[in-house]
Amino acid sequence: MPSQDENILIAVDGGNIAGTLVMPAPKLPGVLFVHGWGGSQQQYLARARQIAALGCVCLAFDLRGHAGTRPQQETVSRENNLRDVIAAYDVLASHRLVDPASIALVGSSYGGYLAAILTSLRPAKWLALRAPALYMDQDWNVPKRQLHRGDELLTYRQQLVMAADNRALRACAAFHGDILLVESEHDQVIPHAVIASYLEAATQAHSMTYRMLRETDHGLTDEASQRAYTTLLLNWMKEMIVGSTSGLPERRKQDSDSKLGGQTRRNLAENG
Amino acid sequence: MPSQDENILIAVDGGNIAGTLVMPAPKLPGVLFVHGWGGSQQQYLARARQIAALGCVCLAFDLRGHAGTRPQQETVSRENNLRDVIAAYDVLASHRLVDPASIALVGSSYGGYLAAILTSLRPAKWLALRAPALYMDQDWNVPKRQLHRGDELLTYRQQLVMAADNRALRACAAFHGDILLVESEHDQVIPHAVIASYLEAATQAHSMTYRMLRETDHGLTDEASQRAYTTLLLNWMKEMIVGSTSGLPERRKQDSDSKLGGQTRRNLAENG
Repeated sequence: MPSQDENILIAVDGGNIAGTLVMPAPKLPGVLFVHGWGGSQQQYLARARQIAALGCVCLAFDLRGHAGTRPQQETVSRENNLRDVIAAYDVLASHRLVDPASIALVGSSYGGYLAAILTSLRPAKWLALRAPALYMDQDWNVPKRQLHRGDELLTYRQQLVMAADNRALRACAAFHGDILLVESEHDQVIPHAVIASYLEAATQAHSMTYRMLRETDHGLTDEASQRAYTTLLLNWMKEMIVGSTSGLPERRKQDSDSKLGGQTRRNLAENG
Repeated sequence: MPSQDENILIAVDGGNIAGTLVMPAPKLPGVLFVHGWGGSQQQYLARARQIAALGCVCLAFDLRGHAGTRPQQETVSRENNLRDVIAAYDVLASHRLVDPASIALVGSSYGGYLAAILTSLRPAKWLALRAPALYMDQDWNVPKRQLHRGDELLTYRQQLVMAADNRALRACAAFHGDILLVESEHDQVIPHAVIASYLEAATQAHSMTYRMLRETDHGLTDEASQRAYTTLLLNWMKEMIVGSTSGLPERRKQDSDSKLGGQTRRNLAENG
């Protein structure tokens, strides 16, 4: 594990003495949370804290047109929001504690759609999509709100879309990492055909974990649904991180035999 | 493992969006390095980086009268330097990543003497003393340099000193943590009687690791001696940390079976 130095001044008797703090600088997985249309980073903070506790650096953020920039909601386009996601990704991937080769993208609905597209623009190892939305490629720079005018989008989402015909699906088709795909049983916004299109597109994924959340709606509006999704995401992240190269363990139990060295410990674990 | 939030602004298209970084906040052992008379923090930085890489937060610093405050060398007293050590300890123990119940003190010569005394003023779990010096309790506020006038100190160090009669030894006698005591075989400054006095004083230590470094002088002036001490200290710290409650592991090997969950892994390790 690398370390990093920080020069400090220590106050004593009205003066200062010089000191150097030397801290471990592990390279941890980074997890980017992309909220859905009408949502905000707030929805993800509790989940982010649980995943951070596994030994990840998490970043949740507000897409333009939401929270502090709500007045832009009528004018913001997919291009604008994709640029938000890229900017957030770049902040996370360049964080001093983050291993840029171990980034997870977690998105819901519109955020899942953007996260899927992001995999074609930035490296990601893991992709967790909950009820990912789907839009026709055309009108890319039109305000996102306007994409919902008329019945065209509704019709589009009722049919199986070929990966080649859609930007988000093309990205999934080219994605080689691990995918978690979560469907809500009673999703009133994202029909099963959309989930099936994502599922069929992801032919090159290193692993696919597809789960249906029973008795849930698109927004996971009751607390039990929220909990079910959190548990699912957390368990998937745990599995992914354990198989990965880095990570902080949870606090160890006091060891009854302190003579058992770290190397022996690790060997036992890896041979088990 | 607890986590901590950091609110950030993410620049995009000439504006900002709000984000929250959520990071793991493990509680790590803290290690305080106290250099000897005439030394400086620089001597400890390489060692500090190696120990930080084990998953510790290390702090090395310059005692008053050294490095940046060299002009005070003629006037600085043990009281002044002890206050330096306390101030540095307090900075370390209050660091956000440090578990204040898991502090190691590492001192050489005069720094070992001060570190021993510090255990009577601040909690410490581990105490590593290399060629610790010994001074009579009297003249506590006299400039440290003056303690070496005449032969009195030389004579004092040739005899076995009872723990009750010396502040540093009293501290060692009352210390319940783990001790590493390192002697240089050809120490021209600290006679064996001083090491023996420390050894005899430490009757309540949780563990005692006493080692002689063969073919070495007081200052470990050649590189092989430095390496030998570093190896000794590093191995001792590893043993202490593994038996402790917290710590970051070194980077894990890629696991061939990523389905083996974290819980199973830990159980295997702890039953081994």
